[in-house]
Amino acid sequence: MDKYKNLTRSLTREFINLNPIQRGGILPKEAKKAVYEYWDGYSVCDYCHGRLDEVTCPPIKDFLEDIAKFLNMDCARPTHGAREGKFIVMHAICKEGDYVVLDKNAHYTSYVAAERAKLNVAEVGYEEEYPTYKINLEGYKEVIDNLEDKGKNVGLILLTHVDGEYGNLNDAKKVGKIAKEKGIPFLLNCAYTVGRMPVNGKEVKADFIVASGHKSMAASAPCGILAFSEEFSDKITKTSEKFPVKEIEMLGCTSRGLPIVTLMASFPHVVERVKKWDEELKKTRYVVDELEKIGFKQLGIKPKEHDLIKFETPVLDEIAKKDKRRGFFFYDELKKRGIGGIRAGVTKEIKMSVYGLEWEQVEYVVNAIKEIVESCK
Amino acid sequence: MDKYKNLTRSLTREFINLNPIQRGGILPKEAKKAVYEYWDGYSVCDYCHGRLDEVTCPPIKDFLEDIAKFLNMDCARPTHGAREGKFIVMHAICKEGDYVVLDKNAHYTSYVAAERAKLNVAEVGYEEEYPTYKINLEGYKEVIDNLEDKGKNVGLILLTHVDGEYGNLNDAKKVGKIAKEKGIPFLLNCAYTVGRMPVNGKEVKADFIVASGHKSMAASAPCGILAFSEEFSDKITKTSEKFPVKEIEMLGCTSRGLPIVTLMASFPHVVERVKKWDEELKKTRYVVDELEKIGFKQLGIKPKEHDLIKFETPVLDEIAKKDKRRGFFFYDELKKRGIGGIRAGVTKEIKMSVYGLEWEQVEYVVNAIKEIVESCK
Repeated sequence: MDKYKNLTRSLTREFINLNPIQRGGILPKEAKKAVYEYWDGYSVCDYCHGRLDEVTCPPIKDFLEDIAKFLNMDCARPTHGAREGKFIVMHAICKEGDYVVLDKNAHYTSYVAAERAKLNVAEVGYEEEYPTYKINLEGYKEVIDNLEDKGKNVGLILLTHVDGEYGNLNDAKKVGKIAKEKGIPFLLNCAYTVGRMPVNGKEVKADFIVASGHKSMAASAPCGILAFSEEFSDKITKTSEKFPVKEIEMLGCTSRGLPIVTLMASFPHVVERVKKWDEELKKTRYVVDELEKIGFKQLGIKPKEHDLIKFETPVLDEIAKKDKRRGFFFYDELKKRGIGGIRAGVTKEIKMSVYGLEWEQVEYVVNAIKEIVESCK
Repeated sequence: MDKYKNLTRSLTREFINLNPIQRGGILPKEAKKAVYEYWDGYSVCDYCHGRLDEVTCPPIKDFLEDIAKFLNMDCARPTHGAREGKFIVMHAICKEGDYVVLDKNAHYTSYVAAERAKLNVAEVGYEEEYPTYKINLEGYKEVIDNLEDKGKNVGLILLTHVDGEYGNLNDAKKVGKIAKEKGIPFLLNCAYTVGRMPVNGKEVKADFIVASGHKSMAASAPCGILAFSEEFSDKITKTSEKFPVKEIEMLGCTSRGLPIVTLMASFPHVVERVKKWDEELKKTRYVVDELEKIGFKQLGIKPKEHDLIKFETPVLDEIAKKDKRRGFFFYDELKKRGIGGIRAGVTKEIKMSVYGLEWEQVEYVVNAIKEIVESCK
């Protein structure tokens, strides 16, 4: 039992964490304060009258209205995360065997959600493979036409707003337009965008937006938001026959605890930070410019339009061949300098983000990496 | 935005909280310490190699093995809670249109999970209605036979170990025996038992056990455990075709954050506290004995075998008719005495629990209620 008695995090909070899946999920102090209030079990249910999304103390009901406005969508519900949001949509609006048309950079959970919902998947490929891996957005049309020609039903169009592999931002408006022309519901996976950068649902003609609290909205995992248009409200919020207050796809209530409290407490912070997105892009592009000077090569669309950076790092790979620590030298050297979040042992390609770091920290990271490469070469 | 800036809990932590859905979810200090470590977004994923249940730092993999042993089951997976566990089981092992046979005291989420999984439900009724609402466990046989006679397929037998309405403990062994005889998978909903009292899966012949971290295992919401027998492991943990490491029903990973950290940190505390279940029953029975003296009437099986108590309270209802605060007098008077968790305005029937309170606190609660009734009468 001892191993459960002091659960400390090896990657301590004092470290600069470069992991792209974590940089957007760091709690501001307001959220930490709320944690002390609500960490006990079902504490958000103190004043519940039957449904989480209608709880007014803490102000979940208001929050859902505010977040829907923030995203320029009609309605919103809490979820356990983006993947659970995708499954809810697919399960609620598609019929078994329908096709989900999605981009080739889609997160694995988009595929798995479709598989769980017993749907088929058809991929829209690249305009260019290496090195940009840019999705051919006009390709949605062709893929859909091909399926329809074969008599297949396309139940949903899914676009990954920014993917987790290359950090490529897709012009959602193009796909939204195709979706409207075809009359097919359109889901935009904003796990890497909502909470980091501005997202406007109606402008891109999204019927559904899924967002991730832990990935990009400064919240504890697991939680997220599913926002949707009025048109699909009946299907998404359909209630139980026997228990008419309970929404079937939510199993009554979804994120009924601490994570949603952190999501709400962080909301004012998130609303402010998305306004500073341009500054974040400057930091990201600075990192790319500086590290390309020492032999890193940025993959994905250039210049960067998102903070997730993927580098090819032949220079690290060369060092790993000679260093007695092999591929672990880089992780090891970063750790000595108080930097974490880069996968240990990997040197061919690395993923990183400096989202939300102060400029001084960004410079420190860049200089640390330069110093490591210089000294180990 | 101001309303999100200081999310404080009205029912403060200094209050004695009598809400049965909350008494088992209060965090011990070990879990609170772990919260500081892991509150940031995806922090449990620091050392992930593809799947939550295989993470070794923090020790999720070991924990799942230990919790399976603790429940005397073969395997375990984290979930977002008992309801999500029930849906996973129904969705993984039943076919659309199958019947789930369940007890009439089943939680609403058992029905809603079946509805979401497109299954039918058949209820096993009472041996006695008012005042015990005791389930006729032998009735499972008859309900199943009737369905099978009509050519219906029973996909799952579900029993609520202890229900949330009357706190009645069901003899799961009886239903397990019927399930084995009929060759139908058996799910035991232990949201109100695992973490409070000893539960032995194999002894009762359960194929699946769902447990609730926030309800009964001293964890932050939302999280839970789905434990299952080897026999059903293939179906529950079936992996994706395209992503062979990812389990479909888990959408890859379920409770990927703070709540599962609190669940693990509380585990040693939980293991110890279930050994003191007899003492908890003594406290519960003391409360019943004392409050029946002033005109409360305990509903459900007598003597109590679980800490959730439902009382008929005609004496409170009488007072409410005269008191200018109407039904709110009771809530109001309890609040003055630092006691919360009883639904405001309700006086015909109340639900309460003193689980985990010190004897001095139990006596304080009993005396406070007596004093309120005496002084307001």
